[in-house]
Amino acid sequence: MGGTVTAAPWKQLLVDALESNAHFKHSSFFQLATVGYNGRPSNRTVVFRGFEEDCDKIQINTDCRSRKIEELKHCPFAEICWYFTDSWEQFRINGTIETIDGSNPDPRKLQQREKCWFASSLNSRLQYLGPNPGLPRLNEEPPKEVILDRSIGPVGAFCVLVLDPEQVDYLNLKSNQRLVFTSTHVNGVKCWTSEEINP
Amino acid sequence: MGGTVTAAPWKQLLVDALESNAHFKHSSFFQLATVGYNGRPSNRTVVFRGFEEDCDKIQINTDCRSRKIEELKHCPFAEICWYFTDSWEQFRINGTIETIDGSNPDPRKLQQREKCWFASSLNSRLQYLGPNPGLPRLNEEPPKEVILDRSIGPVGAFCVLVLDPEQVDYLNLKSNQRLVFTSTHVNGVKCWTSEEINP
Repeated sequence: MGGTVTAAPWKQLLVDALESNAHFKHSSFFQLATVGYNGRPSNRTVVFRGFEEDCDKIQINTDCRSRKIEELKHCPFAEICWYFTDSWEQFRINGTIETIDGSNPDPRKLQQREKCWFASSLNSRLQYLGPNPGLPRLNEEPPKEVILDRSIGPVGAFCVLVLDPEQVDYLNLKSNQRLVFTSTHVNGVKCWTSEEINP
Repeated sequence: MGGTVTAAPWKQLLVDALESNAHFKHSSFFQLATVGYNGRPSNRTVVFRGFEEDCDKIQINTDCRSRKIEELKHCPFAEICWYFTDSWEQFRINGTIETIDGSNPDPRKLQQREKCWFASSLNSRLQYLGPNPGLPRLNEEPPKEVILDRSIGPVGAFCVLVLDPEQVDYLNLKSNQRLVFTSTHVNGVKCWTSEEINP
């Protein structure tokens, strides 16, 4: 391998993996690790919500009230571990996460949040109207009948996490090949180099 | 829920999930998050190698030369995220990891390491004789023919990670139920309490 390129060379590998594993619903799920206040790691399954338009940034929808939002304020670094169960490929993608909630001052980011909202199913959207995730469940209260008009825009609890990849460690367990892609910034432009390493 | 018990109440849920997903090879894979030297999270797929005998500690085989060993020396905390693709159950298991390598002074721990070695396939064992994982691949060298006698005990690079669970966050996406199991130590004995929380 070698050489420096501006287009993310791992993105095509990931797009191919998504395509070849598309018959499994869970192929769009990956594990997102962050660091908590206590300095300990946190890890949970989230859903891939596509790349940000025309780039390699990864979008995730989440609830503003979930613990990871607090954790990311404290430490914005994250590592995705994405294992494709059919093609036996693993992508470890680390980078920095930006949180876009309804209070974002940038109109383009608010538009991006709105786009993610309308791209998700009505069922997914309903979750953001539910009780505070992680708090004790109050069984006394019967679940309220929630009605959500599909034309209504993002509710307050809805936010989008955008991970900007810095390094990608790709492992193919069928071919036993492992590649590391590393980004650098040259004159403000993100460039990628790659190297084959021992699996 | 409620009450305090000494047997880990989440263990049966996990054993059941393993059983109901056993037809998938990947059901024994989970993602292990640790914290690196730079304070950033790391996340990778590893294989479940069973519970430590008669307890709830989780065993993982790994290569002493892999980066996570250095990371765990610096910060012994980890969180497993284990998603079962067929039953739609997620276990987030956090705790402290002990590393058992060949230099361990405790004969019982060396015996545990030996047991894990012989319980793994010959193919798995061969990996520990390969070149240093994560280092640049030297394509010039043809891969050496490695012969490993199946009666030979653990090689130097083989070590066992033992995760001692402190808290388990269980989520069932089919029933939309979420339970948190928390351990405390009462007179030196680990006890568990559980609580239902909002998913």
